[in-house]
Amino acid sequence: MERYDIAVIGTGPAGLEAAITAKVRNKSVLLLGSKGSSDKVAKAHTIQNYLGLPEVSGDKMAQAFLDHAKGMGVTITEDKVNAVYSMGQYFAIQCHGGDYEASSVIIAAGMTAMKPFPGEMENLGRGVSYCATCDAALYKGRTAIILAYSKEDEEEAEFLAERAENVTYIPQYEYDGKLGGNIIVKKDIKPVSIEQIANGMQLTVEDGTFVADGIFILRQQIAPSQLVPGLAMDGNHVQVDRQMATNIPGLFAAGDITGTPYQYIKAAGEGNVAALSAVSYLNSLKNK
Amino acid sequence: MERYDIAVIGTGPAGLEAAITAKVRNKSVLLLGSKGSSDKVAKAHTIQNYLGLPEVSGDKMAQAFLDHAKGMGVTITEDKVNAVYSMGQYFAIQCHGGDYEASSVIIAAGMTAMKPFPGEMENLGRGVSYCATCDAALYKGRTAIILAYSKEDEEEAEFLAERAENVTYIPQYEYDGKLGGNIIVKKDIKPVSIEQIANGMQLTVEDGTFVADGIFILRQQIAPSQLVPGLAMDGNHVQVDRQMATNIPGLFAAGDITGTPYQYIKAAGEGNVAALSAVSYLNSLKNK
Ligand SMILES: Cc1cc2nc3c(=O)[nH]c(=O)nc-3n(C[C@H](O)[C@H](O)[C@H](O)COP(=O)(O)OP(=O)(O)OC[C@H]3O[C@@H](n4cnc5c(N)ncnc54)[C@H](O)[C@@H]3O)c2cc1C
Ligand SMILES: Cc1cc2nc3c(=O)[nH]c(=O)nc-3n(C[C@H](O)[C@H](O)[C@H](O)COP(=O)(O)OP(=O)(O)OC[C@H]3O[C@@H](n4cnc5c(N)ncnc54)[C@H](O)[C@@H]3O)c2cc1C
Repeated sequence: MERYDIAVIGTGPAGLEAAITAKVRNKSVLLLGSKGSSDKVAKAHTIQNYLGLPEVSGDKMAQAFLDHAKGMGVTITEDKVNAVYSMGQYFAIQCHGGDYEASSVIIAAGMTAMKPFPGEMENLGRGVSYCATCDAALYKGRTAIILAYSKEDEEEAEFLAERAENVTYIPQYEYDGKLGGNIIVKKDIKPVSIEQIANGMQLTVEDGTFVADGIFILRQQIAPSQLVPGLAMDGNHVQVDRQMATNIPGLFAAGDITGTPYQYIKAAGEGNVAALSAVSYLNSLKNK
Repeated sequence: MERYDIAVIGTGPAGLEAAITAKVRNKSVLLLGSKGSSDKVAKAHTIQNYLGLPEVSGDKMAQAFLDHAKGMGVTITEDKVNAVYSMGQYFAIQCHGGDYEASSVIIAAGMTAMKPFPGEMENLGRGVSYCATCDAALYKGRTAIILAYSKEDEEEAEFLAERAENVTYIPQYEYDGKLGGNIIVKKDIKPVSIEQIANGMQLTVEDGTFVADGIFILRQQIAPSQLVPGLAMDGNHVQVDRQMATNIPGLFAAGDITGTPYQYIKAAGEGNVAALSAVSYLNSLKNK
């Protein structure tokens, strides 16, 4: 398997700047996220405070960022990271679409306001999962519920349904898809909580319950401490020093995920610092 | 005297972004520095790593920054800060061109590679000074040496010469000025060290010595610990936390002056954070 010098998770300003800086330093970069940058960039109204791009709309800013990255030869791998494991000398990166390896990692996955459901964290890995494709093999002849947050999740449901006996798909977005067969789509359902019961997992919703062997929650963002086992947190942000180093050697973080203020240029500045710190780390590995 | 909400020292990316962010938050801003941004911006060749401005020349980047600031109603006061004094509830800012007051201060004055001359620090305030206009009144009938680093210093020499008996002007730049009268210009002189002697201050140069009552060193940049008495340092950088706060309440720092890496977007990101921290500080004053 190709081992990248630096894997960057997230395509907002922090991730894009990190990838560009790594490229300037001639490192091989795996940039994971969305080809459209980040919704927080593309969907913003007018931005006044990003020095050098006065009174810019979110979509123009996203375009400027993406053009810059493209011009530097940075390509975006459209995938969602499920987990990052430190293997000592390298990192294993488990994505919905496949697995990757990198010598160092920069987490620039942003912040989400979404709170976990009651019962979610307690049952993670014991009936609750964030990646259907990763766990599909375990669901042969079993049943699953998917809480889905974007159109891309429909593909993941189809993949799971090839193994599972049946899948209950509960979209939390404007669903206009064509899922069928052993996939039962339930629209306009508001999930409330999760619990383990005698015959599997129960999802309580506003007016009823669903039961299955497992529940998949396919949110866009995962709590950082779930994304990277062993990652030290400072409240609900990743703990970093002024060089953007986390408690795990070779793992750096940048942008909203490291703390307030939530601002584009703060995120980009930190992406730059994180990338240069990763370069120093790579040099220190070489000199060992 | 008008008391500004926020005084920003320096017009590089850190200072300009700080001023813009403060304006977005409706604060009154005094931005001190140079109308042409910073030499480190304007004179750079090609910059590849400032997200959103791909493959940009230094002068184009300076123009983009200055246009942005202007568009937001930020004006630059062209002056050099000699010292910042914390007065408890506000700061007194002593400049070559006059004095100012502000409730909070952001230092974004960059880094200089220049080392002090042997004997300089020991004699600071005791025969060595960084501001001729500030100390001119003390030089009635006395003699002075000026080590000058830019064309603007010629004006300062003329001001001092109106009081002093005579001024020896030693330019450390390509001098083509018209200083005369009681100002003696000595070109192509390389200063070596400074010491106190029986009848005044002695400047030793590569092939000889000069003696006067005082020596003025008009460098573009002043060591931060000299700029702000009592400022805690971390090596030769200003010590800051992740909110860009220094050890002095109400005083923040951003950019190269706070540490490596020396990079434009890192400096701008920190300017943004420093300004938002200053805004929080101002709110906390109001709520007292
Ligand atoms: C409506 C709105 C307006 C705003 N206006 C301003 C403004 O005017 N000025 C300003 O400075 N700031 C503004 N902000 C804040 C700004 O959007 C954020 O500070 C900035 O986007 C943070 O950048 P980031 O790179 O850290 O994270 P984000 O921009 O959030 O990017 C994170 C990226 O990581 C990806 N990701 C997350 N998890 C994973 C995973 N597991 N696998 C792969 N990819 C993943 C996401 O899809 C996304 O692409 C605004 C925010 C909002 C919501
Ligand atoms: C030749 C060169 C090329 C570079 N190329 C790159 C590059 O490609 N990419 C990159 O990211 N970085 C590059 N850098 C680094 C970059 O220039 C700095 O990191 C950046 O300019 C720092 O910004 P700043 O705002 O902290 O300070 P500066 O840009 O140094 O600005 C400091 C400002 O403060 C003013 N000032 C200082 N003292 C006082 C005082 N007492 N009173 C009033 N004003 C004062 C100065 O006049 C200046 O305007 C380069 C640097 C150099 C020298």
